[in-house]
Amino acid sequence: MNARPGGRTARVRAAVLEATYEELAEHGWSGLTIENVATRAGVHKTTVYRRWATTDGLIADALAATAADTWPMPDTGSLEGDLIELAREIVRGTSPVFEAVIAAGFQSARARDALRDFYTRRHEQAAVVVVRGIGRGEVPAGTSPEELVRLTCAPLFYRYFITREPVDDAVAVRSARAAFAAAAAGVLC
Amino acid sequence: MNARPGGRTARVRAAVLEATYEELAEHGWSGLTIENVATRAGVHKTTVYRRWATTDGLIADALAATAADTWPMPDTGSLEGDLIELAREIVRGTSPVFEAVIAAGFQSARARDALRDFYTRRHEQAAVVVVRGIGRGEVPAGTSPEELVRLTCAPLFYRYFITREPVDDAVAVRSARAAFAAAAAGVLC
Repeated sequence: MNARPGGRTARVRAAVLEATYEELAEHGWSGLTIENVATRAGVHKTTVYRRWATTDGLIADALAATAADTWPMPDTGSLEGDLIELAREIVRGTSPVFEAVIAAGFQSARARDALRDFYTRRHEQAAVVVVRGIGRGEVPAGTSPEELVRLTCAPLFYRYFITREPVDDAVAVRSARAAFAAAAAGVLC
Repeated sequence: MNARPGGRTARVRAAVLEATYEELAEHGWSGLTIENVATRAGVHKTTVYRRWATTDGLIADALAATAADTWPMPDTGSLEGDLIELAREIVRGTSPVFEAVIAAGFQSARARDALRDFYTRRHEQAAVVVVRGIGRGEVPAGTSPEELVRLTCAPLFYRYFITREPVDDAVAVRSARAAFAAAAAGVLC
């Protein structure tokens, strides 16, 4: 196998993972099949079976690939402003694919592990905005960056996937402001 | 049909909804069938089909019945203390049934509507602790009770069902304290 970046193996992986996301967008987690992914990616299904084995293997690898992508962080000049932009990006990024990946976590231990790894990485990436805010003295030095990121995101996910309530820009802004206020009060140290 | 409380219709409903929860606990949302619920409840399956029609009909009615139950609210003497107890109760109440009901929301519009109604009712019920806290001057008068309850609960659900991270008592306490601090800072007005 050619494992060079940009080599055949990398091209097959990119095609299969893109096909996985497209199939998830159209048919959701419960409609995901190895056969349809292979057909859409233009590869033989034995190739997909050999490398990914199962549909939750596909989800796990797709999440790993997405987590490895660079996630551009806002830099508005204030921590509260950055958290607001972070929350807004979650609202913008919500999609049927996103919902399908969260749904997979309810039926597959492998998907749950992949989700945990994915969000660990995302929280680490977003921590940079909190570290800058600590440097500017906006929140106490001992503030947990990951926990502040979690509190910014959690109310949006709660509405989307638990209470099924609407989410709009006001909800995003309020979530970020509430998380920032808690951190500024020293609760996240 | 006898629709008196405690009459045959009420007894059948109670038996069917209890069987629904037991089946969800054992087999999850994807393993829920009308036939198994009927067998477990000791009623004929046509009775279940006639009244509930589908498995998401069962979930919707089970959630409606649970929402109508009285939910005893903590009364520790402080709003922050009450919110901590509320968060702890969510941690105590987590179960395979609970996860199955949230999972149903990913595959059924009817389950989503039932979840929205259920949480609307839960937020209303929990609002009493915030109203008392406003009365004691612990948070500003304009604080949204429902929003404070949402912020208390959201970080727990985020870990349980989205990021699949562990939840312990420290997480419950921190979620409640963070939500209270945001409210005290006036962000939820």
